[in-house]
Amino acid sequence: MTNYDQFFSRAGVAMRESAIRQMGTVLAQAKDIISFAPGYPAEDQFPWQALREIAASLLTGADGAVLQYGPTRGYAPLVSATVDLMRTRGISSRPEQVVITTGSQQGLDLLGRVLLDPGDVALMELPSYVGAIAAFRNVGASLVGVRQDSDGIDLDHLDHTTARLRAEGKRVKFLYLVPNFQNPTGLLIGLEKRRLLVEWAERQDLLIVEDDPYRDLYFPDVTREEETRPIAADDDHGRVVYLSSFSKTLAPGFRVAWVHAPEALAGKLELAKQSEDLCTGALDQRVVYEACRRGLLTSHVPHLRAHYQHKRDVMSAAIHRMLGDRIRWSPPRGGFFLWAALDGGLSARSVLRFAQGRGVIFVVGSAFFVDGSGPEYLRLSFSAPSPDRIEDGVRRLAEAIDDATEAARGAEDTAVPAR
Amino acid sequence: MTNYDQFFSRAGVAMRESAIRQMGTVLAQAKDIISFAPGYPAEDQFPWQALREIAASLLTGADGAVLQYGPTRGYAPLVSATVDLMRTRGISSRPEQVVITTGSQQGLDLLGRVLLDPGDVALMELPSYVGAIAAFRNVGASLVGVRQDSDGIDLDHLDHTTARLRAEGKRVKFLYLVPNFQNPTGLLIGLEKRRLLVEWAERQDLLIVEDDPYRDLYFPDVTREEETRPIAADDDHGRVVYLSSFSKTLAPGFRVAWVHAPEALAGKLELAKQSEDLCTGALDQRVVYEACRRGLLTSHVPHLRAHYQHKRDVMSAAIHRMLGDRIRWSPPRGGFFLWAALDGGLSARSVLRFAQGRGVIFVVGSAFFVDGSGPEYLRLSFSAPSPDRIEDGVRRLAEAIDDATEAARGAEDTAVPAR
Repeated sequence: MTNYDQFFSRAGVAMRESAIRQMGTVLAQAKDIISFAPGYPAEDQFPWQALREIAASLLTGADGAVLQYGPTRGYAPLVSATVDLMRTRGISSRPEQVVITTGSQQGLDLLGRVLLDPGDVALMELPSYVGAIAAFRNVGASLVGVRQDSDGIDLDHLDHTTARLRAEGKRVKFLYLVPNFQNPTGLLIGLEKRRLLVEWAERQDLLIVEDDPYRDLYFPDVTREEETRPIAADDDHGRVVYLSSFSKTLAPGFRVAWVHAPEALAGKLELAKQSEDLCTGALDQRVVYEACRRGLLTSHVPHLRAHYQHKRDVMSAAIHRMLGDRIRWSPPRGGFFLWAALDGGLSARSVLRFAQGRGVIFVVGSAFFVDGSGPEYLRLSFSAPSPDRIEDGVRRLAEAIDDATEAARGAEDTAVPAR
Repeated sequence: MTNYDQFFSRAGVAMRESAIRQMGTVLAQAKDIISFAPGYPAEDQFPWQALREIAASLLTGADGAVLQYGPTRGYAPLVSATVDLMRTRGISSRPEQVVITTGSQQGLDLLGRVLLDPGDVALMELPSYVGAIAAFRNVGASLVGVRQDSDGIDLDHLDHTTARLRAEGKRVKFLYLVPNFQNPTGLLIGLEKRRLLVEWAERQDLLIVEDDPYRDLYFPDVTREEETRPIAADDDHGRVVYLSSFSKTLAPGFRVAWVHAPEALAGKLELAKQSEDLCTGALDQRVVYEACRRGLLTSHVPHLRAHYQHKRDVMSAAIHRMLGDRIRWSPPRGGFFLWAALDGGLSARSVLRFAQGRGVIFVVGSAFFVDGSGPEYLRLSFSAPSPDRIEDGVRRLAEAIDDATEAARGAEDTAVPAR
């Protein structure tokens, strides 16, 4: 028998499965389960016909590069298209500052590799996106959490934490955050706070990694577009690395996203990408570029806002009706997620056990906390299921909370005589 | 001014541009250049019409998963298809042992991450594939070269090197090799040697990473299919990790390849891939799967063999005619590359300077040697250019060698009086 443990690197030994991908596996095994787990966009909203036409127009053989290896930085017209797109968001960028990535996940992974040595600190929101947590942990970084208020990251706690870490001799590299409809909380960072964050980075001589996949998916009934202004838009000192993606607005199956970074850093990201996958898929990039060029993206996004806003309404109403005050939550102002806290000392983990039996899944909130806290939270994604399934799923969730409450009471009852 | 150097990780600081990708940049900047540089497959050989039909049949919206996030391991039917494909090559595998990767480059990168700590040794053929060199260097590994004979790696030197490294207290992890039509030499490892390599791995308690993208592209006039039998086919102890790809037989723009590994290692690769890009492109995987399922791959490959064999003939004839005995080389038996050594003390680097002026590029051989040797070698890729362009390119190359020879003589002449 070959013993493989001896071959693994320290990084290999330390790697752990993501709580979201784990739920994906559960889902793949049982098709009748209603999933509030992964933040999958709604498949019936993909612009199928337009994409089919685009693919057919590209695959004629007239331009061989459509299926060839391409530049590591990305297909040049697509790079320019992202520069244009960022301009509409207030960010001034140049092609030399952009790297097309195989999904934003690759952007996060590349940033981890070129910025973080083992033991270096990345500051993370409490809670934060698990994909970023995994990417930064995989290079041995030390992840330190900063609390959030209702308008995003707590600036006092941020200052305090930075000072404490430096006093301890730690090497802090950057603050990672999701400014718009954060994954998992759905929070939006206030505009004044965004400007103060740029100042903070300059004052502390640090970088900000701004991950912005949900920006286009604000809900017009409660959010104005101006409120989604990226932090990078007010960055005059090259402090902000900005990531965004076509996965939520077009389709994730293309794996096309981008990073905007100071030129020196963009060059390093390109080198790291060379050894990760040489280049992002050529056909995927061409399709996405055509979707930009033909105006498909622009015309499509308002429909998505209405679609997800409606699903938010459906889930909100169902929760009001079936869960009442048994969970604490605020209605999302955009994005894919409803973040909820269980009352009465129940843990999300215990509810998940019963939920799987009832045919509904979600992601336990503790997976998003780098300090291991948050046992009472759960992330409910309302983006993928149909309105009917959302209602049905909330019903099943209510039953699972009943189950878990009862089991907890039973355990208490059993526990009392034993004392 | 923000100083970015302070933010880079050690890995980030050490990253260097690949010599092949560098030539790709030269190429992108001047379209009239004839490129013998990157090993690009011939675009006019991509099965455009069949692929267009497949894409259209997939993008109907009937199956939403075609553009959705998918399992990190890969689309399950494609995983099974690779198991079937490996069976035709003599390898016995199971879906639990396979991970679909975003090109084989990602497979190499993932292997580097889960197997190599800084300072760990990866044994590499002299010369070896630059993409593997970059992936393993990026995790801080120490790469040690092993010589090759005309039938591949020198087993005595391999034993000797392994023993020496261990005596020095080094932690050797694996031997990386390309068994069929090696990149860059075009060499084929002899069948008996392949069996001895499996024994070597078992005796030494080490792994072999077998990278096999060119296997299907043997040239029937001088190579029998049996001679391409993978090392993994005779691995009874789970010592061999096997990588192969659809990039050379279908199209590289899809970025679809796979790794077969012992189950414990495949699990680690999956975790590493989760944080690198979540999953390989869904549409790309579906298209490749359909190409397998419909028999397109099987029917297409014999045409590719004939196509590249013909281009090999064209380049061989042109070299005989125009370069005579000014370079040393053997006619390739498969794959994309002709490996040549310059005579008379000329360096490939000096020839490349003149070649760019003459409108032809290639990759300097020294980029492939982990010990920095091989200044006289050049890698000529005959796969992408048309037969006419191949002839024309060899003519330009001959002129560049003339230029470099003359310049070297001039330098000598100038040098003499100065002494």
